[in-house]
Amino acid sequence: MLLIFVSAKLMADLAERIGQPGIVGEILAGVLIGPSVLGWLAPSELLSALSDLGAMFLLFRVGLEVKSSELLKVGGTATLVAFCGVVVPFVMGTGILLAWRAPLNESIFVGASMVATSVGITASVLPAKGLLHEISSKIILAAAVIDDVMGLLVLAVVSSVTHGTVNLLQLSLTALAATAFTVIVAKWGTHAMNHVVPHVERGWRVAESRFVMAMAMLFSLSLLAVYTGVAAIVGAFLAGLALSESTGEREKDLAQGVSELLVPFFLAGIGLHVNLSAFSHASTAILAVVILVAAVISKFIGCGLGALGMGKADALRVGIGMIPRGEVGMVVAQLGLGFGILSQSSYGVVVFMSVATTIVAPPLIKLTFGALAPAGTAAVEEEVFRLE
Amino acid sequence: MLLIFVSAKLMADLAERIGQPGIVGEILAGVLIGPSVLGWLAPSELLSALSDLGAMFLLFRVGLEVKSSELLKVGGTATLVAFCGVVVPFVMGTGILLAWRAPLNESIFVGASMVATSVGITASVLPAKGLLHEISSKIILAAAVIDDVMGLLVLAVVSSVTHGTVNLLQLSLTALAATAFTVIVAKWGTHAMNHVVPHVERGWRVAESRFVMAMAMLFSLSLLAVYTGVAAIVGAFLAGLALSESTGEREKDLAQGVSELLVPFFLAGIGLHVNLSAFSHASTAILAVVILVAAVISKFIGCGLGALGMGKADALRVGIGMIPRGEVGMVVAQLGLGFGILSQSSYGVVVFMSVATTIVAPPLIKLTFGALAPAGTAAVEEEVFRLE
Repeated sequence: MLLIFVSAKLMADLAERIGQPGIVGEILAGVLIGPSVLGWLAPSELLSALSDLGAMFLLFRVGLEVKSSELLKVGGTATLVAFCGVVVPFVMGTGILLAWRAPLNESIFVGASMVATSVGITASVLPAKGLLHEISSKIILAAAVIDDVMGLLVLAVVSSVTHGTVNLLQLSLTALAATAFTVIVAKWGTHAMNHVVPHVERGWRVAESRFVMAMAMLFSLSLLAVYTGVAAIVGAFLAGLALSESTGEREKDLAQGVSELLVPFFLAGIGLHVNLSAFSHASTAILAVVILVAAVISKFIGCGLGALGMGKADALRVGIGMIPRGEVGMVVAQLGLGFGILSQSSYGVVVFMSVATTIVAPPLIKLTFGALAPAGTAAVEEEVFRLE
Repeated sequence: MLLIFVSAKLMADLAERIGQPGIVGEILAGVLIGPSVLGWLAPSELLSALSDLGAMFLLFRVGLEVKSSELLKVGGTATLVAFCGVVVPFVMGTGILLAWRAPLNESIFVGASMVATSVGITASVLPAKGLLHEISSKIILAAAVIDDVMGLLVLAVVSSVTHGTVNLLQLSLTALAATAFTVIVAKWGTHAMNHVVPHVERGWRVAESRFVMAMAMLFSLSLLAVYTGVAAIVGAFLAGLALSESTGEREKDLAQGVSELLVPFFLAGIGLHVNLSAFSHASTAILAVVILVAAVISKFIGCGLGALGMGKADALRVGIGMIPRGEVGMVVAQLGLGFGILSQSSYGVVVFMSVATTIVAPPLIKLTFGALAPAGTAAVEEEVFRLE
């Protein structure tokens, strides 16, 4: 644990010094100490549990800073962004693999792995730069949540198609449950919490009762999210959203402590999964680069088109902000590997794409959002953010 | 995770309502959902990792509130308290088991399991009541740390004796390393950190650099502690101690958040280990009660005697404060079970003793320290504590 935490922070420091976001350093730290370079550490059950918790707290914290009413206001645009951002990468990814003469099932699976954006990565860059209140940030967050629900459906469809059995009823039920859960919590969660939290504060005898309440919400919504089929981190984000109006500074600080501790495990954990030995064949390496470029361009075009109604500058930002695939692509890849549909080399390609999009995006985000925050050093921007 | 966190907090709330410390409720929650009553959860690797982390953060937080110079001032008394508190329980425990006609090796091991105080339990009661700055609290903390080093030596000696091989050189080296580590960090740690922290703050580019620094210290000293043979939580406590003068309110809040989240896992985790089915035989049940009474009385007398120089009232408090054995006794018992020296029934007895002393002590602590803090509700006391 010490090794991960310290190396992630050292690399983050290094990254900041050369003008890159710290997050890139933390992911690269995972690559560095992981199996492919130094081989000091391999992914383990404990590390992945810590990394999941880290992602949950990250999204919870981001949720706390955003008002659900503001997200719902951009709901239409966000849905369009999410939809285009799902279709374009899926078609492009499947097409490339087919052109590469991969089997149809494998091609579809690689396409599916390029669908979902890792909201965690973008979410960890935006607050650090104090940009969470920009309209484009809100679209990105809302679109990433919708995108997660759509990605889930794509994965469900793809899994059943490649297995040869399509159960339409079950697919529609999954879609309904996931959508209902997300919409209900986003729409009425804040209102409900505004009523419940004061009661809890008066009624409970436990110290730090509001924080205890917040943690209970965080865990139960994450669990509920998993049951309805959405990712746990979407549940965590919705929990934060629901509590955003009823939570005080102290609870935010307490949650911030947990997230400061655990987020490096999430970021370095992503890097840990990279295994460069998969690229010993030149053709695999070329495919990896082609897929990476396609993943970047397709999301950028798809989401950018969806957001074009907001004006060119915001469309650019949304397109860039949706690029990182992070842990979501890797989950799909692991599933495909388990089904025996993905070969080891396409698995390596997808993991590489997931990590590389994640490393490429933060500097681009910094660049495109840069004009909005000309305040100079990150420290100053953070101060501004904290004062808001 | 949700289950543990929520049930621990619900039981804590219940305990506070009937006038007991919340910590008792959290441990009982572990017993309740554990294998012996509801059987919803069994100890697992992930839970024990979270519980270890919880204990580390608990002790780290306590360390942050205490000045090492003040601990060193009571060093003499604390050493005497620790020494008497080791000898009396060991002799009494071994004697009782021998009288019960247990084999010599088994008797010695049970005696050894009664030696070490769980500073974690006392440490989690004292700050909640705002009593950390009483002289008796400081003696308890210092004595519990020394006691841990002594307990380690007793365990090392007992293990070698029961294995028939005693390596005096190795034992002395262990003793030396453990003592040297503890004394050096306690004595010069704060001074060193007062110099290092300002440099870190200026030099590092990472956000929340002081918290990052604190976490790095916490993990490295805990790791170092384990290498020198002391418990990880002693290392965590020393890390807190070393940083107590150079750490600001913000870092304390951040660490507080982690500890609020993880400490329930530590407390409920202790309760999870209880297996009441071990007591189906009447003779085992009687032995368990006898050992429990002996564990309470022997620590109370031993440590009380050691602190008699401070006056009767403080001696009483110190005697009570050293009673809980918590996780330390269970570690020894697991070791004995692994060696094949402890039978299943004596293992059950030791675990019962560890948990029961831990549940019995907090109300007694509340009672004996009560006269010092007549401020009424716990909330008010907490407020006072926070303002200090």
